[in-house]
Amino acid sequence: MFVLGIDPGLSRCGYGVVTRRGDRLVAVAGGVVTTPPEMPLPDRLHTLSDELRALVDEFSPGAVVVERVFFQMNARTAMATGQAAGVALAAAAASGCEVAQYTANEVKQALVGFGGATKEQVQRMVASVLGLVEPPRPPDVADALALAACHLTGQPLRRAVAASSGGAQ
Amino acid sequence: MFVLGIDPGLSRCGYGVVTRRGDRLVAVAGGVVTTPPEMPLPDRLHTLSDELRALVDEFSPGAVVVERVFFQMNARTAMATGQAAGVALAAAAASGCEVAQYTANEVKQALVGFGGATKEQVQRMVASVLGLVEPPRPPDVADALALAACHLTGQPLRRAVAASSGGAQ
Repeated sequence: MFVLGIDPGLSRCGYGVVTRRGDRLVAVAGGVVTTPPEMPLPDRLHTLSDELRALVDEFSPGAVVVERVFFQMNARTAMATGQAAGVALAAAAASGCEVAQYTANEVKQALVGFGGATKEQVQRMVASVLGLVEPPRPPDVADALALAACHLTGQPLRRAVAASSGGAQ
Repeated sequence: MFVLGIDPGLSRCGYGVVTRRGDRLVAVAGGVVTTPPEMPLPDRLHTLSDELRALVDEFSPGAVVVERVFFQMNARTAMATGQAAGVALAAAAASGCEVAQYTANEVKQALVGFGGATKEQVQRMVASVLGLVEPPRPPDVADALALAACHLTGQPLRRAVAASSGGAQ
């Protein structure tokens, strides 16, 4: 099963596809969807929506994982990120596959072991977990791969919890 | 030309269609798109996106006007509203028509004459401008009709400005 991680952003939206091969996690693809700042906002969001839907069509992931965003100090950036996240979530749900959301802290906690990890630590750990020779760059791609890896590493635990509680995750 | 106004929201998203007949503005349609709180967020956003795209298909508006949202006190509500606005803007841009955004204060200023107007004042003014016997309810519909009416009333001025500056609006 492919898992598509999405680090939502209007100017730069990172994506990464991860799958399990045997007992290893491997990166299948990664990149950044960009929209030009001079383009009107509605067109940027529409472009982002189309590009993300095309990625979902291309990889047919079993799950899409979108970073859960919160308000940051910069209200203008946070609103753009929130709008981009909304478009990403809608595009993911349109495919009918599982859609999950984790906060950046949850991903850091799962991969690095503590929620306050730096970007460099996340990049190095993503490289290590996915067997990459170099840390994935730019950080948007590393974050997206980390989201997908975090979802795959957490799967056995979530299945066990769902089975023991008699419900589906 | 039909103008579709959208008052973005995740639980309740108001819409209203307004057109000009002779020297009058008339309401063509109005309503609310709702998504159930118990539905997962990605599915709610996808449902909203589909419903808004269906409205754009149905009315083929010459312009779609989406309220420009800002951060409010409640960060949780504001993020949901921002995500809904993102989906609305992307759906509008997908149709290729003109997409405009006004703040609630700009609409109140244009219709009632001052930005601090109450919801009841907006509802009454919308009824008056559109020749409705009763104020449109719920307020989400009134706000959406107000957005569309605001865009139509501002058109002659915007055209004159665009013509005098030699550029297209």
